[in-house]
Amino acid sequence: MKPKIQSHIDVIHGQIEGGEVFNPLKVANKLTKLHKYDVGLFFASLSKLEGNLLGEVLLRLPTDSLALALGRVTPHKIAAAVQALESDDATDLIQRIATVNEALGQKILMLVHPNDRSRIEELSKYSADQAGAYMEHEYLAAYDDDTVASVKELIRQFRANEPGTPIIKLFIIDHESKLIGTIHFSDLILFDDADKLSEILEKLAYKPPISVRPSAPIKEIVRLFEEYDLNVVAVVNKAGKLIGRIVYDDIYDIIRKTEAERALALAGVKQEAEEGTLFDAAKQRLTWLIVNLGAILCASFVVDQFSETIAAYIALAALLPVIAALGGNAGIQALTVTIRKLALDEVEFDDVSGILKREFLIVAFNGLAVAAVASLVVFVWFGDWRLSAIVSAALVFNLLVAGTAGTLIPLGLTKMGVDPAIASSVFLTTTTDIFGFFIFLFLAQSFLA
Amino acid sequence: MKPKIQSHIDVIHGQIEGGEVFNPLKVANKLTKLHKYDVGLFFASLSKLEGNLLGEVLLRLPTDSLALALGRVTPHKIAAAVQALESDDATDLIQRIATVNEALGQKILMLVHPNDRSRIEELSKYSADQAGAYMEHEYLAAYDDDTVASVKELIRQFRANEPGTPIIKLFIIDHESKLIGTIHFSDLILFDDADKLSEILEKLAYKPPISVRPSAPIKEIVRLFEEYDLNVVAVVNKAGKLIGRIVYDDIYDIIRKTEAERALALAGVKQEAEEGTLFDAAKQRLTWLIVNLGAILCASFVVDQFSETIAAYIALAALLPVIAALGGNAGIQALTVTIRKLALDEVEFDDVSGILKREFLIVAFNGLAVAAVASLVVFVWFGDWRLSAIVSAALVFNLLVAGTAGTLIPLGLTKMGVDPAIASSVFLTTTTDIFGFFIFLFLAQSFLA
Repeated sequence: MKPKIQSHIDVIHGQIEGGEVFNPLKVANKLTKLHKYDVGLFFASLSKLEGNLLGEVLLRLPTDSLALALGRVTPHKIAAAVQALESDDATDLIQRIATVNEALGQKILMLVHPNDRSRIEELSKYSADQAGAYMEHEYLAAYDDDTVASVKELIRQFRANEPGTPIIKLFIIDHESKLIGTIHFSDLILFDDADKLSEILEKLAYKPPISVRPSAPIKEIVRLFEEYDLNVVAVVNKAGKLIGRIVYDDIYDIIRKTEAERALALAGVKQEAEEGTLFDAAKQRLTWLIVNLGAILCASFVVDQFSETIAAYIALAALLPVIAALGGNAGIQALTVTIRKLALDEVEFDDVSGILKREFLIVAFNGLAVAAVASLVVFVWFGDWRLSAIVSAALVFNLLVAGTAGTLIPLGLTKMGVDPAIASSVFLTTTTDIFGFFIFLFLAQSFLA
Repeated sequence: MKPKIQSHIDVIHGQIEGGEVFNPLKVANKLTKLHKYDVGLFFASLSKLEGNLLGEVLLRLPTDSLALALGRVTPHKIAAAVQALESDDATDLIQRIATVNEALGQKILMLVHPNDRSRIEELSKYSADQAGAYMEHEYLAAYDDDTVASVKELIRQFRANEPGTPIIKLFIIDHESKLIGTIHFSDLILFDDADKLSEILEKLAYKPPISVRPSAPIKEIVRLFEEYDLNVVAVVNKAGKLIGRIVYDDIYDIIRKTEAERALALAGVKQEAEEGTLFDAAKQRLTWLIVNLGAILCASFVVDQFSETIAAYIALAALLPVIAALGGNAGIQALTVTIRKLALDEVEFDDVSGILKREFLIVAFNGLAVAAVASLVVFVWFGDWRLSAIVSAALVFNLLVAGTAGTLIPLGLTKMGVDPAIASSVFLTTTTDIFGFFIFLFLAQSFLA
């Protein structure tokens, strides 16, 4: 056995037995390594995990390793692991299991305690872009006529029932379960056992608590956390009744995922497909390549219309890539900046002229600068000042097109309700290629002849 | 006055006077709008802000609006605003002021209370990628021989001195200021006034607290927060003495910024330059365009070597963009996925063959699929099966190059200590353009003649 493999095993055992805080991602990574090296070692290490630890690790295994694990670990052990997770994670795990093996997902759900099962079924109703999908049912709530003494009793019960779940804050509700307030324990600790929560809220002159609805877009909730520096928020139903909470650890994940997905989408890649089999990833990427093939063939068609001019001045063929590359690059710069502004909600749609003006001035300036350098190189290379002037003019023109299109395409797509990160770049490069080639070859046809 | 402008003013006033939690980003955005419309209205609204609210808003104004504000608001008022901020934000604000006006930054720093000043000076020592730059000096700490009663007194003092700063957790230190434990108030509340913290820690059997050093890379600290679901972490010096804390709200910012910067860097854009003047942004983007011009001229040079072949078969010129675009796109897909894996620490450098194999198989599969479609189109278009076969072969070859280069370039750059997001894409497209054009034109020269 490679010493490397032994070190993976040691890390897993250290995590399970060790005095450190358990790191499920690390264990999942090491298990994946073992899976690739030897299936037996994978199962040997996996068998040491159970309950909450097993659940946390299963949640983080890549699809192929998860499928392997599900084939061996007993459904009862998996059900116990699901049950030990917080409700949002439990729902995620059941859904991942169902993706691998629908029947097994159903079977495990049936083995879960009915209380947990109904929570999971409720959370499953929400899509990944809704707040409800990130809601936990584990939280600490007390009635407004409860005393500090009874809150202490509630804490003890919570600790016994949900070891490992952070309490963060106390939610205060009325007898109809409506949310009245949120209080931090560093405030609560200053009061006496006999004090009532309603009186405490009054004394602290707390502002009304922030709450969200489970159907709200999670993107907006994340913004709420960021702008108001929250670490937990109450989720209430239509009637204002407290039904769950959303916690900072999910916010970390969502921010990272949202931003990363935008970057991937620009390149025509989807994280979900990449996490699947090789064939899933290839198929998803191929769709994008075929769309691009269609788009670039339109540009080729434009070039073909000028075949006589190119035949007469063959240097034009060598310079076509220069026109395309610089237009594409300048356009992608404007595009990325505009998509970023859209993501940060910095765009007011009834006043886009400011953004457009800035981008236009930038490409105008850069177009002139790039054209100056390029025309010099072309003159030295081909010794033809007319060709040099045509390249310059085409570059300036194409960069102006690029800046304008790079700004308007994402704005237009967003206005139409399409995610600009996914579709923008192919529209952009098609625009710059077609316009760039046309103006370059048209100028050549007109002035070189 | 446009009704829109009035609504901006209303929002600002509502925020200042209203019962809601103050949202500084919203106020800063509205002030920016006013700045563009009428400088007088900008100052009128700005004058209503002071202390903490003024500081939070100044921190979020874009550079040009900040510069305008600094010219009018008195240094004393700004110093009071700096002083009202938490120490990491106060440091940021002083640094932003100094960027706009070095002398004014110094002057304001001198007006700040010496205690705050020395904190700011200490935090200024750390660069933006070090944990120290995000450290707050405002935290609640008690000695291990303190009782619960004395912690309550500390809370009261803290609330009086630092209204609005969340306490989150209690840090427990020994008389040499060494960090011994971290405790949540929902645990502390269960103990009696006379109980000593050292005994409480023992009873709770707490694991040793997680702490970080101010010189640690902030990227790693963010990972710590994410993997262990932390909301606060203690910062200790070399000797283990508690010197500050890092809080979840900074983690939200850093995650968003890190991920977004990667996406921008791939397009040759820097967020910092974009936030500056139009000229800053143009200059920074121009550098990238010039690098790309140099790279694409190399590819043009390759094309020019085959000018005789192109002159004989002019259809080749129209098909050059197809070869370049598909190679570039497939390469960017592999590149983005690899950069993503690097960012998630999913790459083990002594075993990159797995990643390379996966990417190679994906481009092999997609190369064949794209070549099949393209060869059909080319055959229908030009009616020449030899040209069709050459396009196919060049596409398959170029996609294989793209997949390999898209994987190896970011891995190589990372190994060399260069951020792959910044430099990868120009290396990649240069590689695919040069190899793609060469093989396409070489095959044409060999088999069309």
